[in-house]
Amino acid sequence: MAKRIAAFGEVMMRMQVPGYESLAQSSSLQYSFSGTGVNIASALSRFGHTGYIVSTLPNNSIGEAAMAYLRKLGIQTTFLSRAGKYVGMYFLENGFGARPSRVTYSDRLGSSFNTSVPDTYDFCKIAEEIDIAHFCGITLAMNDSVRDQMKQFAREVKNNGKSVVFDCNFRPSLWGTDGYAIAKPHYDEMLKLADIVMMNEKDAIFTLGMETQEVDSLEQLKDLIPKVAEKYGITVIAGTHRLVNRDNTHSLRGYMYKDGAFEFSKMLTFSVYDRIGAGDAYASGIIHGEASGFTTERTIAFASAAAMLAHTVVGDTPTSTEAEVFHAMTDKAFDVER
Amino acid sequence: MAKRIAAFGEVMMRMQVPGYESLAQSSSLQYSFSGTGVNIASALSRFGHTGYIVSTLPNNSIGEAAMAYLRKLGIQTTFLSRAGKYVGMYFLENGFGARPSRVTYSDRLGSSFNTSVPDTYDFCKIAEEIDIAHFCGITLAMNDSVRDQMKQFAREVKNNGKSVVFDCNFRPSLWGTDGYAIAKPHYDEMLKLADIVMMNEKDAIFTLGMETQEVDSLEQLKDLIPKVAEKYGITVIAGTHRLVNRDNTHSLRGYMYKDGAFEFSKMLTFSVYDRIGAGDAYASGIIHGEASGFTTERTIAFASAAAMLAHTVVGDTPTSTEAEVFHAMTDKAFDVER
Amino acid sequence: MAKRIAAFGEVMMRMQVPGYESLAQSSSLQYSFSGTGVNIASALSRFGHTGYIVSTLPNNSIGEAAMAYLRKLGIQTTFLSRAGKYVGMYFLENGFGARPSRVTYSDRLGSSFNTSVPDTYDFCKIAEEIDIAHFCGITLAMNDSVRDQMKQFAREVKNNGKSVVFDCNFRPSLWGTDGYAIAKPHYDEMLKLADIVMMNEKDAIFTLGMETQEVDSLEQLKDLIPKVAEKYGITVIAGTHRLVNRDNTHSLRGYMYKDGAFEFSKMLTFSVYDRIGAGDAYASGIIHGEASGFTTERTIAFASAAAMLAHTVVGDTPTSTEAEVFHAMTDKAFDVER
Amino acid sequence: MAKRIAAFGEVMMRMQVPGYESLAQSSSLQYSFSGTGVNIASALSRFGHTGYIVSTLPNNSIGEAAMAYLRKLGIQTTFLSRAGKYVGMYFLENGFGARPSRVTYSDRLGSSFNTSVPDTYDFCKIAEEIDIAHFCGITLAMNDSVRDQMKQFAREVKNNGKSVVFDCNFRPSLWGTDGYAIAKPHYDEMLKLADIVMMNEKDAIFTLGMETQEVDSLEQLKDLIPKVAEKYGITVIAGTHRLVNRDNTHSLRGYMYKDGAFEFSKMLTFSVYDRIGAGDAYASGIIHGEASGFTTERTIAFASAAAMLAHTVVGDTPTSTEAEVFHAMTDKAFDVER
Amino acid sequence: MAKRIAAFGEVMMRMQVPGYESLAQSSSLQYSFSGTGVNIASALSRFGHTGYIVSTLPNNSIGEAAMAYLRKLGIQTTFLSRAGKYVGMYFLENGFGARPSRVTYSDRLGSSFNTSVPDTYDFCKIAEEIDIAHFCGITLAMNDSVRDQMKQFAREVKNNGKSVVFDCNFRPSLWGTDGYAIAKPHYDEMLKLADIVMMNEKDAIFTLGMETQEVDSLEQLKDLIPKVAEKYGITVIAGTHRLVNRDNTHSLRGYMYKDGAFEFSKMLTFSVYDRIGAGDAYASGIIHGEASGFTTERTIAFASAAAMLAHTVVGDTPTSTEAEVFHAMTDKAFDVER
Amino acid sequence: MAKRIAAFGEVMMRMQVPGYESLAQSSSLQYSFSGTGVNIASALSRFGHTGYIVSTLPNNSIGEAAMAYLRKLGIQTTFLSRAGKYVGMYFLENGFGARPSRVTYSDRLGSSFNTSVPDTYDFCKIAEEIDIAHFCGITLAMNDSVRDQMKQFAREVKNNGKSVVFDCNFRPSLWGTDGYAIAKPHYDEMLKLADIVMMNEKDAIFTLGMETQEVDSLEQLKDLIPKVAEKYGITVIAGTHRLVNRDNTHSLRGYMYKDGAFEFSKMLTFSVYDRIGAGDAYASGIIHGEASGFTTERTIAFASAAAMLAHTVVGDTPTSTEAEVFHAMTDKAFDVER
Repeated sequence: MAKRIAAFGEVMMRMQVPGYESLAQSSSLQYSFSGTGVNIASALSRFGHTGYIVSTLPNNSIGEAAMAYLRKLGIQTTFLSRAGKYVGMYFLENGFGARPSRVTYSDRLGSSFNTSVPDTYDFCKIAEEIDIAHFCGITLAMNDSVRDQMKQFAREVKNNGKSVVFDCNFRPSLWGTDGYAIAKPHYDEMLKLADIVMMNEKDAIFTLGMETQEVDSLEQLKDLIPKVAEKYGITVIAGTHRLVNRDNTHSLRGYMYKDGAFEFSKMLTFSVYDRIGAGDAYASGIIHGEASGFTTERTIAFASAAAMLAHTVVGDTPTSTEAEVFHAMTDKAFDVER
Repeated sequence: MAKRIAAFGEVMMRMQVPGYESLAQSSSLQYSFSGTGVNIASALSRFGHTGYIVSTLPNNSIGEAAMAYLRKLGIQTTFLSRAGKYVGMYFLENGFGARPSRVTYSDRLGSSFNTSVPDTYDFCKIAEEIDIAHFCGITLAMNDSVRDQMKQFAREVKNNGKSVVFDCNFRPSLWGTDGYAIAKPHYDEMLKLADIVMMNEKDAIFTLGMETQEVDSLEQLKDLIPKVAEKYGITVIAGTHRLVNRDNTHSLRGYMYKDGAFEFSKMLTFSVYDRIGAGDAYASGIIHGEASGFTTERTIAFASAAAMLAHTVVGDTPTSTEAEVFHAMTDKAFDVER
Repeated sequence: MAKRIAAFGEVMMRMQVPGYESLAQSSSLQYSFSGTGVNIASALSRFGHTGYIVSTLPNNSIGEAAMAYLRKLGIQTTFLSRAGKYVGMYFLENGFGARPSRVTYSDRLGSSFNTSVPDTYDFCKIAEEIDIAHFCGITLAMNDSVRDQMKQFAREVKNNGKSVVFDCNFRPSLWGTDGYAIAKPHYDEMLKLADIVMMNEKDAIFTLGMETQEVDSLEQLKDLIPKVAEKYGITVIAGTHRLVNRDNTHSLRGYMYKDGAFEFSKMLTFSVYDRIGAGDAYASGIIHGEASGFTTERTIAFASAAAMLAHTVVGDTPTSTEAEVFHAMTDKAFDVER
Repeated sequence: MAKRIAAFGEVMMRMQVPGYESLAQSSSLQYSFSGTGVNIASALSRFGHTGYIVSTLPNNSIGEAAMAYLRKLGIQTTFLSRAGKYVGMYFLENGFGARPSRVTYSDRLGSSFNTSVPDTYDFCKIAEEIDIAHFCGITLAMNDSVRDQMKQFAREVKNNGKSVVFDCNFRPSLWGTDGYAIAKPHYDEMLKLADIVMMNEKDAIFTLGMETQEVDSLEQLKDLIPKVAEKYGITVIAGTHRLVNRDNTHSLRGYMYKDGAFEFSKMLTFSVYDRIGAGDAYASGIIHGEASGFTTERTIAFASAAAMLAHTVVGDTPTSTEAEVFHAMTDKAFDVER
Repeated sequence: MAKRIAAFGEVMMRMQVPGYESLAQSSSLQYSFSGTGVNIASALSRFGHTGYIVSTLPNNSIGEAAMAYLRKLGIQTTFLSRAGKYVGMYFLENGFGARPSRVTYSDRLGSSFNTSVPDTYDFCKIAEEIDIAHFCGITLAMNDSVRDQMKQFAREVKNNGKSVVFDCNFRPSLWGTDGYAIAKPHYDEMLKLADIVMMNEKDAIFTLGMETQEVDSLEQLKDLIPKVAEKYGITVIAGTHRLVNRDNTHSLRGYMYKDGAFEFSKMLTFSVYDRIGAGDAYASGIIHGEASGFTTERTIAFASAAAMLAHTVVGDTPTSTEAEVFHAMTDKAFDVER
Repeated sequence: MAKRIAAFGEVMMRMQVPGYESLAQSSSLQYSFSGTGVNIASALSRFGHTGYIVSTLPNNSIGEAAMAYLRKLGIQTTFLSRAGKYVGMYFLENGFGARPSRVTYSDRLGSSFNTSVPDTYDFCKIAEEIDIAHFCGITLAMNDSVRDQMKQFAREVKNNGKSVVFDCNFRPSLWGTDGYAIAKPHYDEMLKLADIVMMNEKDAIFTLGMETQEVDSLEQLKDLIPKVAEKYGITVIAGTHRLVNRDNTHSLRGYMYKDGAFEFSKMLTFSVYDRIGAGDAYASGIIHGEASGFTTERTIAFASAAAMLAHTVVGDTPTSTEAEVFHAMTDKAFDVER
């Protein structure tokens, strides 16, 4: 059954150098609007749900452009506030083969989202009108004001008996020196509120400070994730292990822990066109599987195939329909579809 | 020696989304004009023959654009009629890796070619002025009027002692429910008129309703193709087996049956840039080999290399010269040519 | 106060050659989706109303692209049906100076909208949920099935006490030989249902067959429009006189007839970037003025300025906000706005 | 009645910076192939004649591209030789308003055309197969070898009783110091062979060294052109006076002298998109008028309208059909044609 | 004689929507780097001087791109510091005819330039190595730290006996409420240090709070500018009056006050391609005239023609050479230059 | 420590068909300026040295564009002369998979560089101001005048006790029939002056006419290179063996011979985006290693990684910084860098 999912997070303007030139070589940019919340809300709309973004955009040409873009993606803008002056931006230079891609941020702390006043959103009302809320560790890294909004929203959702999804998504560069120590209490708080959590063993070790005797990452995962689930009372924990190969392909294996048991996807290896946002496609697959009552095995296969397809799509935001993901879950490659 | 080859078939307008965006993501299209007949006539012009297209285009801007494009390809437009109102069109969205390409057609039944009146073409005169005529199963699927023109043209060609080439090219979506049963009498008729036929075991089984005890497709081919040749009195039957791999490569192996014997090419595996029209390159290679008196072994190697190169070229229409195909028949890969 | 406006009409795919090349010279197209209904619904959304399109789109890539584009324009797609196979299309080649622009249509009679089955739309429900419905003479020219849907919808709107807007928009090429005679009874029917009508003296003379002794077009207008208003019981009649100048400018003068009196705008002369859709901007301005309780003088000035701005905007669909139109109603030209 | 016209001259590769950037600002170029001969042959093909180019192109990728482009323009390539190594090239930077356009040439003296060996063309056979031959003063400026070919071709044409058209087109930069003195004997020779000549009073004064007491250019024209016609035995002399205005428009007035009488077109003022090649459109109009038996008045109006339209078209080469020129000969400006 | 000119100011990243679409309609941007200082240093390099920029750029991909762009413009980067994290950015949407252009800024207060630490630049050494320093009122509006750097640099320049140029360039939006009052002391300070000042009567009235009985702007200018020159001890004051016309043209008249006398240029009216940065071209022309010992009449004609040309050039930054400006100072319009 | 390196050689204009179309299919080109000297000077600038180009460019728009481009690359233009009329040009059509890339040259012998008069450069002064000079076998192939300049410059460098680098780079098509015999004395002369030489066994066998009993290319290398070093008194000889694979990858192994010992890099296999100029990246790596006092092992690893990265970068000219090359020397592939 179709759910109403609201994602809380910043709308970013992505400005990408077309082709494989650097910013110093090129003179043009392709722009679009994305962000973890945008990706989640859009991906779930493609799967048949109703996706909302809870965010703030400025009242100027860029805000207008962002609004139009979100509508185009099929995202509901009902819970979008208009205030402030700027949109967070990032520049993307595509790598090729042995040369990695580069991302350069503009000053996102001054964005409309990150400077929004405390009572910008009516979380009470939003929590009533939705089924699931999605949060992300990137938002948690911004500033106290946004962190407070985020936790307040999560609490309202819980109070209304709705589901909280939290993607740990720890970005060291956003937290600065002693980042893990600063981040831990905030992560603790969010994890206690969460029903579904996206993470892997690295989050447990570094952010949550948990210890393990294992050295292999898979063994660490098997050791620590059950402990996290128990400690914080989390229903579903899921995530991926990723390998970046030297030949423009990645290998990815998804896992999901639920009801005391692990389920793993096959190791998928595939050509990569645009890697950014693929993690959000995976999270959307997990949420969709859970929302649709899939078996764990089917959920993990669905989420992994959704992530694989997201690597083949232009832009951050996953665009595959449920049918397309099912199609990709088979092992075959396909000729032109006419 | 250079031959005069006339291909009967629709000129299609191909509208391709540049890069890897979908129609919903992009806002621009690259257009060109192609179709099986166009591809055959153009490919054979590159091999030193004179290629004609027998078709109809409207008297408007799009017809003008198509005419100019055909001339650019080196196709003779002497046998082209101008009437009707529309050009058949298709939209192409490029796939990437695990995500397949998609083709969406406009209403081609209303095209100038498919609505042309019975006496549009002077087949008698055309048959006198050419050496070889090429027909395709796609045209056979259109409507009774076009089917009648096609058979009339083929008969005139035979009556003039010239060669008929027929490419089975059965597209299920064009024939609808009970397609095989509806198609069979028309295929029977064309096969009886044909000297050279492009097909494989699937056509024999599904369209012609032939039976075999073999299960492996290669064994089916070896069992059925000689029977087809005998039943319909066909001099040369040729075709390919294709494998779509998951890493943006295809594998292709060509076969040719002539004088009671099979000849197979090596299995070629190669990177694919644009897969559409590659079958027409293969057919052009077979026609060229036969027209030039190549040995069967050389013809099959030539046709397979021509098909391989057609996968590396922008657009539907093969552009390789005879020298370039000979070059590609060696096993080496080449550095920049200066 | 914001109104809910539903426009009934076909969604067209516009494919424009960029710059000033012809289709025979270029190899790329810019595409967007428009149509009179789309333009009206979008323009009124920019003015603060809620705009719906009542139409049908196919369930394929092009339908998806059209849906996304309509959402981007801010149009509500609640009343949009998905069925059929094709979208009506037109190709636009830009003229320059003494060389006129050219429009070439694809086969729109086979479009999803024009082949939709009789009970496609729940007009009863739609009429309840809206305030104003907009219809256009282009739709009236299509076929009996669409004409029946159109009249049924208009009657439901009247039965619900809501407003009917009808834009005469007679296109001779769509009606064929004896077009005026064929069209007249259908126009009679729509005019009797209409509250607001877009037309000028030419419609009265040619389509409605009315006679006048005047020879000057302005005098003809003054003679005939009051008679039309009386005969059909129309509240507001409005329209424009346009002059195409040789230097890439147009001159435009709007008129409005209401309560037995004419009001004329100043003659505006302005540089033209894209002329298509400007008439819809004018109609939207009239509807907005009436919906907002503007004086006739203000309405006519607003509609004329809206039309002028629509000539300066890329694409068919007007994009100006109410504030931007007010800004343009002053006589000044403006420097860069920072 | 349709004529066969062969133009002798170099095929140039035009490389244009798109938009209004300079070569130092931009990083991309649009290329096409043109030249006076190409423009004449293509323009007359659009008017219903058969246009040939007599020239030489190299056997490499650029030669192939030029061949394809000429075919696209509808030019017959039967008389085209393939030899040498290079194509003459020029770079075009578009001016805007008060900033003039700039043309920069590559080394055209080394081009295939300008280095072709004496017996490259079978002028005897060509002269038999055509009705009219066109020559240009630019070719005359190249080198002795090309000049010899040019005169030999013109003589063969005269010997076969066919028509010679000569466009004086004196470019000072190509002739260098003492250019007029060096050029005169060659011009004398060509003018004696010519039936139709494109020139104005400046050519008579500077190149032919004729004297006049008049100071106004129109009076000079009226004084000198009859003397030129008499001295060299020329049937038709035609040309234009052009005014470059500061607002992106030009003013142009055509004249034609025939049977002892002058005919002048109206002064046309029009917006200019691409000025290069417009003189060739004028010449093509004169040739077409003469070939079609138009009155002098109609010829001059046709040629002037053809020239005007050529200023509105992308690229050097005129693309207007006879119908489009007739359309433009009216005084009206036109709305979009649908 | 060639001078060494250093401009102190921010390097901005300009991101322009190509063509005439809005940010909401388009998906691509053209970027370049400019700013008043960049424009001045580059324009004077084209006039044969050595132009330096004194500014700060971040150590990332965008900083690298800006550096490469400045080098391309011919600007010396010796005095450029690398620190901080961001570059000031602005988005430009082109207007057309009656629709004005729009500029939207990103958060420039956080830029590397505006957050540079006090001792970033060795003004002492810079002042020794240059002849002229250029400052701008936009920089004065930023923050105290930058203001202090600016004044310190200007004082060092004076102390070294070099020239100070100050362009008042008051932008109300940058100063906020009570902007004039806040700005005045800073302007007072800069004007006292300045030898050449760019301003007009509006600056005198609003920023400097001077009073006049005149109502016409020209009379106000004549009344106030001599008083400003006297009060602050300024050698040369220059500026322009601009009129934005409705037909994509502007009218501009330059003035210069020196040695107690006014000199005015002719009123120039010209087509406008890109208006931004044209004021900097004018200032560069004044500086060049003064640096080259032109008469006041010649200086004002040169500066006005330079400003006119800057309106016809792509981008903010003037690109005309001294020869091109001289060329434009004649009254003629020019045909293609070959 | 940073060195000053001057490369002597032609600045070429590269005109590349974008994407994978041929010149006959496309209508646009991307242009940039490169050449061996440009590539070396730019690559070494990225590694922290000061790179000069010693060459000649024309005084026109193309010369201006080349100057701006060289500055953008960070190359010092102090030793650049402005004279002559043309720039050498080449057209690049990208291959794909089994279809090789094609390069077509314009007439470079007429370029400003190749027609520069004997005393164009003050080699005496240049030799004093630099540490290292770079020469290339391509320049040696041009004409006697350029060869004389080249040798004169090399002798001056030696006389000043600076280092000479010579890249053999024998291009058979530039030397014509009996090329090896014609080339040998010139190569002998340059090799005697050289300190660092880029070559492999093929140069020894074909150009220098040396003999070996070995058949394997590696064994030939080991046999001949020490003999070359001894015969000509060369300190360092380095080069690569390259394998072009059929799947858009190349394999490359670098070698270096110094102090009587060989050092080999690992065999690197990597995806190739743009192969041209990669040899210059390798040479730059060797020069940088030697200039920086790296061990031979580190130099060879650095040069090979620099060459590998150059295959992943748009354009001929290497753009990687020293840090990026160090990064690529590890075996890992990297995810997006944020």
